[in-house]
Amino acid sequence: MAFDDGCPDGPVLVVGSVAYDSVRTPFGERTEALGGSASYASVSASFFAPVRLVAVVGEDFAPSHVERLGQRDIDLAGLQRAPGKTFRWSCYYEYDLSQAHTTATELNVFESFRPELPSNHRDTPYIFLSNIDPTLQLSVLDQMRHPKLVVCDTMNFWIENAREKLLEVLARCDVALMNDAEARQLCEEPNLIAAGRKLLNMGPGTVIIKKGEHGAVMMSHDSYFTAPGYPLEEIRDPTGAGDTFAGGLVGYLARCGKADEETLRRAVITGSVMASFTVEDFSLNRLFNLSHEEVAERYREIMAMTRFGGL
Amino acid sequence: MAFDDGCPDGPVLVVGSVAYDSVRTPFGERTEALGGSASYASVSASFFAPVRLVAVVGEDFAPSHVERLGQRDIDLAGLQRAPGKTFRWSCYYEYDLSQAHTTATELNVFESFRPELPSNHRDTPYIFLSNIDPTLQLSVLDQMRHPKLVVCDTMNFWIENAREKLLEVLARCDVALMNDAEARQLCEEPNLIAAGRKLLNMGPGTVIIKKGEHGAVMMSHDSYFTAPGYPLEEIRDPTGAGDTFAGGLVGYLARCGKADEETLRRAVITGSVMASFTVEDFSLNRLFNLSHEEVAERYREIMAMTRFGGL
Repeated sequence: MAFDDGCPDGPVLVVGSVAYDSVRTPFGERTEALGGSASYASVSASFFAPVRLVAVVGEDFAPSHVERLGQRDIDLAGLQRAPGKTFRWSCYYEYDLSQAHTTATELNVFESFRPELPSNHRDTPYIFLSNIDPTLQLSVLDQMRHPKLVVCDTMNFWIENAREKLLEVLARCDVALMNDAEARQLCEEPNLIAAGRKLLNMGPGTVIIKKGEHGAVMMSHDSYFTAPGYPLEEIRDPTGAGDTFAGGLVGYLARCGKADEETLRRAVITGSVMASFTVEDFSLNRLFNLSHEEVAERYREIMAMTRFGGL
Repeated sequence: MAFDDGCPDGPVLVVGSVAYDSVRTPFGERTEALGGSASYASVSASFFAPVRLVAVVGEDFAPSHVERLGQRDIDLAGLQRAPGKTFRWSCYYEYDLSQAHTTATELNVFESFRPELPSNHRDTPYIFLSNIDPTLQLSVLDQMRHPKLVVCDTMNFWIENAREKLLEVLARCDVALMNDAEARQLCEEPNLIAAGRKLLNMGPGTVIIKKGEHGAVMMSHDSYFTAPGYPLEEIRDPTGAGDTFAGGLVGYLARCGKADEETLRRAVITGSVMASFTVEDFSLNRLFNLSHEEVAERYREIMAMTRFGGL
């Protein structure tokens, strides 16, 4: 493997949604394609570390998808199959690809989803709580024994409808991910740096604010890191970019077995690289056709485009 | 001087507006304060190289402003004084500081301004054509003898109203500056990278697209550089940020006497640093109270916040 530099691998637990997405962009359209936060995050993380996926699908979930996920280093023991239909999400994008316009959300089996971790999953050292109801995120945390690192994501819906529970999650996680609009909304603070500081005061030692094509910033109480967006001329479908970013980030940290500032910085760049591939095609198509060498090459490109010397 | 590393200094010619600005932001208000693209750019450039300012003011222009500009290394022989009133601009900003809402523009003496370069100015090696009528930018170029480097800026008004002349300017300059919205508008291309490539095909060897708080990207036919915005928690007045950026950029290039990729990258960071100070206060107040050591310190901060290691 391209990243075999002697770092220890550690498994990553990914909790979230596995879905059928119907997406239309100015560059094409896909109906009922594989989607969901946990799908993107798992496959992305699996480039760097073994993954344990915790999610639910319905009886209609195609065996071919299970097979494809299983071909990666993803343990599917925690993928529940429940009576009913798989979670479905429909949206379209206009030329401003930063804005998803949701046209339908059918929770289906997700409505009664209660993550129940297989016993051997409870010792997983690295956890990614992707964007689901904070109550479910908390229930996963309650089932874990001494996790080494907890990373969480969220979205505007939970900020508006489950603020208190979300604050509980933030108080119990090590790294909080959010996009810029969500950070501003949660903190009621237009300035992003000030919002970042407020987020840090809510508990997490590290806050990563995703800014879409403008990259991401990472803040802790005594450090600040800024990562550029990878310059893409052709973006076909931005769906899953944030989840892919998170998966790459956590996977890389798990592989390195540590989360100090230097490792976190490399993890942010790794997450950006993974996300830049996801948006090149619909669904998880690009991730399923991605090599470690391509990841390493794009990482080097980002290094080259950010370098400059001292005055 | 803090930047005395043996690089040769070269004078910079700055052409543009000197104005009285009345500005209101959520953080305060100033009436008829010193402003104008050439004021910001000249003072910013003067931190790095001798400057020759070419502009016009009216009979009402306060001697104290002339004195303050003259106290920098700025040659005012090209600052014409014409009968009538100085150019005036009024605007306000809401919490989205990226959007200036112009309430009044009084061209006054600027209306009949025809830049007439003193004879000894015509050999200046470095030229910054700040955001004025492209016809005036061209008339300055026509007066120059073998400039070493021409940098130009523009704005949406000229894209809409003087497109052909603007294209002539772009064909004759080495470095074109523009903000992201202007690049998209001029190229009729929503994707910024694609817009950048189109701009390069219009003539300039280097294109720098300013993205406000998100920093800037610099493109040539075979390179790409991305510079972050400096993270500021308190921005009092964004007026002049782009002109200050440009002045710092050109001044730094003039000081180094070259414009290869490595020098251009350092110049972009230097421009960002200078702009980050301008927005901390109204008018040119912060620039007039800025030390070389502060500039060097902030440059080092930006270096530190962009560093990361290989995979």
